[in-house]
Amino acid sequence: MVATRMDPLLDRLIDLALEEDLGAAGDVTTRATVPADARAEGLVRAKEPLVVAGVDALIRVFARVDPAVTVSVCERDGARVSAGAVVARVSGRAHSLLVGERPALNFLMRLSGIATQAARFAAAVHGTRARVVDTRKTTPGWRALEKAAVRAGGCANHRCGLFDGVLIKDNHIEAAGGIAAAVAGARAAAHHLLVIEVEASTQAQVEQCLALGVGAILLDNMDDAALARAVSAVRAHEQRSGARVVLEASGNMSLERLPAVAATGVDLISMGALTHQARSVDLSMKLTLAQ
Amino acid sequence: MVATRMDPLLDRLIDLALEEDLGAAGDVTTRATVPADARAEGLVRAKEPLVVAGVDALIRVFARVDPAVTVSVCERDGARVSAGAVVARVSGRAHSLLVGERPALNFLMRLSGIATQAARFAAAVHGTRARVVDTRKTTPGWRALEKAAVRAGGCANHRCGLFDGVLIKDNHIEAAGGIAAAVAGARAAAHHLLVIEVEASTQAQVEQCLALGVGAILLDNMDDAALARAVSAVRAHEQRSGARVVLEASGNMSLERLPAVAATGVDLISMGALTHQARSVDLSMKLTLAQ
Amino acid sequence: MVATRMDPLLDRLIDLALEEDLGAAGDVTTRATVPADARAEGLVRAKEPLVVAGVDALIRVFARVDPAVTVSVCERDGARVSAGAVVARVSGRAHSLLVGERPALNFLMRLSGIATQAARFAAAVHGTRARVVDTRKTTPGWRALEKAAVRAGGCANHRCGLFDGVLIKDNHIEAAGGIAAAVAGARAAAHHLLVIEVEASTQAQVEQCLALGVGAILLDNMDDAALARAVSAVRAHEQRSGARVVLEASGNMSLERLPAVAATGVDLISMGALTHQARSVDLSMKLTLAQ
Amino acid sequence: MVATRMDPLLDRLIDLALEEDLGAAGDVTTRATVPADARAEGLVRAKEPLVVAGVDALIRVFARVDPAVTVSVCERDGARVSAGAVVARVSGRAHSLLVGERPALNFLMRLSGIATQAARFAAAVHGTRARVVDTRKTTPGWRALEKAAVRAGGCANHRCGLFDGVLIKDNHIEAAGGIAAAVAGARAAAHHLLVIEVEASTQAQVEQCLALGVGAILLDNMDDAALARAVSAVRAHEQRSGARVVLEASGNMSLERLPAVAATGVDLISMGALTHQARSVDLSMKLTLAQ
Amino acid sequence: MVATRMDPLLDRLIDLALEEDLGAAGDVTTRATVPADARAEGLVRAKEPLVVAGVDALIRVFARVDPAVTVSVCERDGARVSAGAVVARVSGRAHSLLVGERPALNFLMRLSGIATQAARFAAAVHGTRARVVDTRKTTPGWRALEKAAVRAGGCANHRCGLFDGVLIKDNHIEAAGGIAAAVAGARAAAHHLLVIEVEASTQAQVEQCLALGVGAILLDNMDDAALARAVSAVRAHEQRSGARVVLEASGNMSLERLPAVAATGVDLISMGALTHQARSVDLSMKLTLAQ
Amino acid sequence: MVATRMDPLLDRLIDLALEEDLGAAGDVTTRATVPADARAEGLVRAKEPLVVAGVDALIRVFARVDPAVTVSVCERDGARVSAGAVVARVSGRAHSLLVGERPALNFLMRLSGIATQAARFAAAVHGTRARVVDTRKTTPGWRALEKAAVRAGGCANHRCGLFDGVLIKDNHIEAAGGIAAAVAGARAAAHHLLVIEVEASTQAQVEQCLALGVGAILLDNMDDAALARAVSAVRAHEQRSGARVVLEASGNMSLERLPAVAATGVDLISMGALTHQARSVDLSMKLTLAQ
Repeated sequence: MVATRMDPLLDRLIDLALEEDLGAAGDVTTRATVPADARAEGLVRAKEPLVVAGVDALIRVFARVDPAVTVSVCERDGARVSAGAVVARVSGRAHSLLVGERPALNFLMRLSGIATQAARFAAAVHGTRARVVDTRKTTPGWRALEKAAVRAGGCANHRCGLFDGVLIKDNHIEAAGGIAAAVAGARAAAHHLLVIEVEASTQAQVEQCLALGVGAILLDNMDDAALARAVSAVRAHEQRSGARVVLEASGNMSLERLPAVAATGVDLISMGALTHQARSVDLSMKLTLAQ
Repeated sequence: MVATRMDPLLDRLIDLALEEDLGAAGDVTTRATVPADARAEGLVRAKEPLVVAGVDALIRVFARVDPAVTVSVCERDGARVSAGAVVARVSGRAHSLLVGERPALNFLMRLSGIATQAARFAAAVHGTRARVVDTRKTTPGWRALEKAAVRAGGCANHRCGLFDGVLIKDNHIEAAGGIAAAVAGARAAAHHLLVIEVEASTQAQVEQCLALGVGAILLDNMDDAALARAVSAVRAHEQRSGARVVLEASGNMSLERLPAVAATGVDLISMGALTHQARSVDLSMKLTLAQ
Repeated sequence: MVATRMDPLLDRLIDLALEEDLGAAGDVTTRATVPADARAEGLVRAKEPLVVAGVDALIRVFARVDPAVTVSVCERDGARVSAGAVVARVSGRAHSLLVGERPALNFLMRLSGIATQAARFAAAVHGTRARVVDTRKTTPGWRALEKAAVRAGGCANHRCGLFDGVLIKDNHIEAAGGIAAAVAGARAAAHHLLVIEVEASTQAQVEQCLALGVGAILLDNMDDAALARAVSAVRAHEQRSGARVVLEASGNMSLERLPAVAATGVDLISMGALTHQARSVDLSMKLTLAQ
Repeated sequence: MVATRMDPLLDRLIDLALEEDLGAAGDVTTRATVPADARAEGLVRAKEPLVVAGVDALIRVFARVDPAVTVSVCERDGARVSAGAVVARVSGRAHSLLVGERPALNFLMRLSGIATQAARFAAAVHGTRARVVDTRKTTPGWRALEKAAVRAGGCANHRCGLFDGVLIKDNHIEAAGGIAAAVAGARAAAHHLLVIEVEASTQAQVEQCLALGVGAILLDNMDDAALARAVSAVRAHEQRSGARVVLEASGNMSLERLPAVAATGVDLISMGALTHQARSVDLSMKLTLAQ
Repeated sequence: MVATRMDPLLDRLIDLALEEDLGAAGDVTTRATVPADARAEGLVRAKEPLVVAGVDALIRVFARVDPAVTVSVCERDGARVSAGAVVARVSGRAHSLLVGERPALNFLMRLSGIATQAARFAAAVHGTRARVVDTRKTTPGWRALEKAAVRAGGCANHRCGLFDGVLIKDNHIEAAGGIAAAVAGARAAAHHLLVIEVEASTQAQVEQCLALGVGAILLDNMDDAALARAVSAVRAHEQRSGARVVLEASGNMSLERLPAVAATGVDLISMGALTHQARSVDLSMKLTLAQ
Repeated sequence: MVATRMDPLLDRLIDLALEEDLGAAGDVTTRATVPADARAEGLVRAKEPLVVAGVDALIRVFARVDPAVTVSVCERDGARVSAGAVVARVSGRAHSLLVGERPALNFLMRLSGIATQAARFAAAVHGTRARVVDTRKTTPGWRALEKAAVRAGGCANHRCGLFDGVLIKDNHIEAAGGIAAAVAGARAAAHHLLVIEVEASTQAQVEQCLALGVGAILLDNMDDAALARAVSAVRAHEQRSGARVVLEASGNMSLERLPAVAATGVDLISMGALTHQARSVDLSMKLTLAQ
């Protein structure tokens, strides 16, 4: 992945993480107790079954702490591992390993937690045309990392931010003076590689979107019956016109409801929960001091 | 709070959040659909009962997006509010509100989620001498924010990082060649305002810590009976010596187990779950365009 | 425009510009000759007919130099002005105006140069369906500024960068093992708001793209006859299938050739020259010291 | 050149360039189509006759993208090459080469364009005592790079910024209350290694400058006859006094006028056009994927 | 030491140092006179007897200037060396050595100056229980470096900043409404690894502190007799209570007075002079150009 | 002064100073003891006679901590004040004043210490043609601040860095293959507003410099007699040639020796001691809490 090579945003986040943990005084305990030239090896292990994500962040943390630390990756992003599995081996100066351990694990635990939850969501729609996608409800500063973790877990990404997709919501429609005006404005302003998606919460709005020829419709807060009606209208429109319209269901989603929503025939089901309801999974790093 | 005024780490995190959401192209949809001079007001509301945290971050996000935006805070960090409560009112250019909305809510939802969970943990030890404290298992880049959210929820903080407290763990003991050597090293190296805490997982280690006169002992992964034994030995030692020793229980904690642990008489119960198992709570911002 | 309010990339570029011009020693001449409390007014005037662009950058330069400087904008981005027209009035401390003058004009001259040239390109395709669009051949560090200047001159933007559009070129096709494999890979990886565009240099490749149902085709280095053939095939395909395919002509474009290319019926004509062959236009700032 | 080793300003500009091109989402197309471990070689070739400049920037771009990329330089800054000449060979991971290609070429094309134009200007004054020098009318953020390109093309540099030379212009003279006062102020304030230059637009002002013993005179917007008169007066003064006075002609310069201006006997002819009227020259990078 | 590996604050300070010395124009003299490929070796020597400090900064300066420069350290921080001793050998490109020489020496001279003075202070209390400690009166931007130099000279550190120790001064007491309220507030707010220290300038205040059970007392501006009285009261309290109270003497300290103050039996003597009255010691770097 | 308005290097240094003092945890004591809305006024007073310098830094520190703090300056840089004089009044939130106090005073004490010492050096050469000037032996990160303090004390500045003056030393001469080659190289490379200065340690070298027509000579480590001989030769040369040559004496300077050196007739006496031997002077800030 390119991310392991050049990612200025990740490096800035890692710098924040190291500065907040080290301050100007550094690791007082280690400096007082561990010889400066002591060497060690660390085994990063899963302590529960999980889907791995965040290996690049782990690598970069140690690279920032001490370029001489060696990280051997045993499991890549997306690997499903059992409790006890070794994800990575780290070796180098004991000081560097002790400083990098906590921030590296904090990245890995949170990102693997997202991937692990995403795998459950992906399984819930398996065999349907629907993909579960994330939203912009990510941890500030972590957008690219969390989106990669969502992919590692088998779900997919929505747009990355406000810049790489047009999504016309109720406020935009009101400000523009209606859906037609908003879509026309977006067509004039957006470049040709951006599809225009419009939020619709009623069947009438869905019809209006179809009439305007938009490329994607976000079906907002509809129940399954309403979703099915929208899907039916849209697929009929596709048959008639030859155009392709992506249908995204959004709002009030849960793991339990996913199969029913997927069964309506929508293309995408977007869930903020993919990122903001994920919990960290448990990984540890066991250090062995070299003799 | 000082944080609203000067906090370079927070501003760097907010810059990351804005850059990842805006890229170099900015908010394409808003630029295409909302007049540049349109003005709006936004109401930030809780959509479920919660404990508020992160108001400073919300303020700073809008300050970075557009210094002319006005934020009126209705509920401060620590407030317990019902579903529907207005936490803040934001007014200014519609463009600026639409750009700041998502990152501001992402901060508020996650931090209020931590505070809300912390309030449950605090309630579980209410009436005992024990306080529930956080750990270094925080979201990289978010340490100070999450620690403030923990306080807002009624729990307390452990040390902030590696620099403001000496915590001697098994690796340090091994590297130093024993507890006595590690404690001696730490006493020589740490300044006089830092208490020395040592990790102990057996009663024998607790006794050794007492003999060495350390100021705090981390009782690692003990069951309640072992904790009670350690408390008993330590309190007896305090009676004899006049010295005060802080006892921290750590490892395998859960909301359910908290009352029993608190009942053993420990001073602190540290839980990584305070931060890494918290889920975002739901808040929204409803925009009204000015006529 | 949002850009005047929050644009961390622009501010970082302006900091570079000020640091390279001021060093650690600052404006030696002004410090030695102009009283510290002298005040002045500056008139920014066009010295030739031009299309204005870069007013936001001018505003931000003075805001960074001295927040107390007042900038009154007389002409907005996109305005066509005659020689002698006043674009902005700047007033404040004479020191601040003398420091900000050169960097502010350097932004304005280059960006207005791009807009002025873009207006000529736009005129050359006026009345056709074709729009002239830019490329990624922009001045490093200036992407968003130059793309805004292109719009100010009446042309349009291609994708902003590698992140907000999929453009499959020959190297990608070779690495993927063929167009079909590359398109399949892109469909699986890109989110649903990104259209997939494929580079084609022969009619056979165009047909293959149509068969694969891609959303846009970059017709690379074709002569007008070849372009017309491709347009004809694509429009017939649209009729048959109902799908919409954007056709972009690219390679060996010039102002002279634009009308002929536009006449072939393509949707977009991309020209690196829009940015990398533009020359600065002349603007000056005349200072009047307050009495 | 030192620049290849340590140049924090250049690295900050390159970071801007990479961030604007990659955003938080990175190179979507490459990630989707090119195997992560594919390797490639790229040949950077001139596509027209040109003078090379910007090789250091090319090297640094690839170093930031991926330190494991190897760049072999075939032509150094200042080399005059024919169409087809190989300027550099780049090899490494295909992902890294595809990411670095465009920014690296954007630097090289613009800087070589400046050098190539500079070579024409230098040729126009060849055989005279005059050197063509640049001004502060450079691309913001690019000062040092563009000044190096000017040297590569055979012209020379004026001061770098406001900090490394005293140049007293009309505003300074007015604010100080006359040339004499301005020169006295500058002498008192500037350190002894900075020559004092004064702008003069009439013969009377030239005489006044001579009387004040300044080290350099900027002859502003004079026609050739006026320049010749000034040169004659100054050379006579040099004969009388033994002092050396540098004469700089400025204003309304063009390639066509250069020989006549040089023939007046001035030392320097400054032209903003050296940087702000240069156009990029064409270079490409042809990639070969390793088998 | 960890500092040589990862220290973002140090690297930011070094970047400032290099930018202020190089500007955008770089080392004009070296570029003009020294061949770009010339190599050299430099010997860093003490020119007077001194205690070494700042070796890490020297290493990092050259690493930033040119990663290919080799630094061999002959004397580590804390070494007492005679005039003429070689502290380090540096070899690499002559350009890089000439650029790094002055900033590297500027770090080493100032930090060794602090260590050398600290050694005199340490000697003045040798054989007593007292340690001389620093304060927050350090050179802005240099806190961690100067504190390390203080340790290298044999003195000790007070808290690093406002974040890693509670020190209640007169303003805090007044604002809180008395010592008791201030101490109670601090106990509630500070984590358990921070000792609470209170400033006292009278014996009555000392008694009040003892009654409140604080862990350390800063005896402010007392004469030796008052210090002795305070020590006597505190040691008696320690006997009675078993608690340990650290006594810090502060205010009007000098090298001459140190033995008398140490003789009173205080634990710590804090002196701002440790950092703000230190003078640089003399070190030079002699370059030999390789043949 | 421009510095109070825009000085990115100063702001970066202040950020370092605030981050090293506040860490991620902030001012624990103040947060625990002072009400968040308490207001206060602070009087910054000289505690000994001194020459003020660093007022801009004091202003910027409080501006970074809290833009709502008001600073009223009573004494400007360069003012000679008695013990007890009020230099500035600061008012605002008590939290902000307590956070800004120490860094602001640390700047003011060090810079006023430099100005105060500089005033003594300036007095020692009063009435002669000689000016005492600084060197590049400044505190890394503080170059511009310390040079301004030197001016505030009545001495003058040498070049700011490697970029704004050509100073050819022994290493350059050796690398270039002799003085003549080095001077020729510098003339070709340096722009026309930079005077060329050459280091000479013997009378023969002085003569060689005169023959080469350099603008300034650094007389290195000469005793007073040698200096006088050099001055005599140079003044005779000036008479003969009409050229002006600046003579700088350097090496082994002290306050005591200054009058004798000045009496030799040199123009400049450079002393690293101006910056690296200065000690901080005493200033304090007395806070009054508002009722």
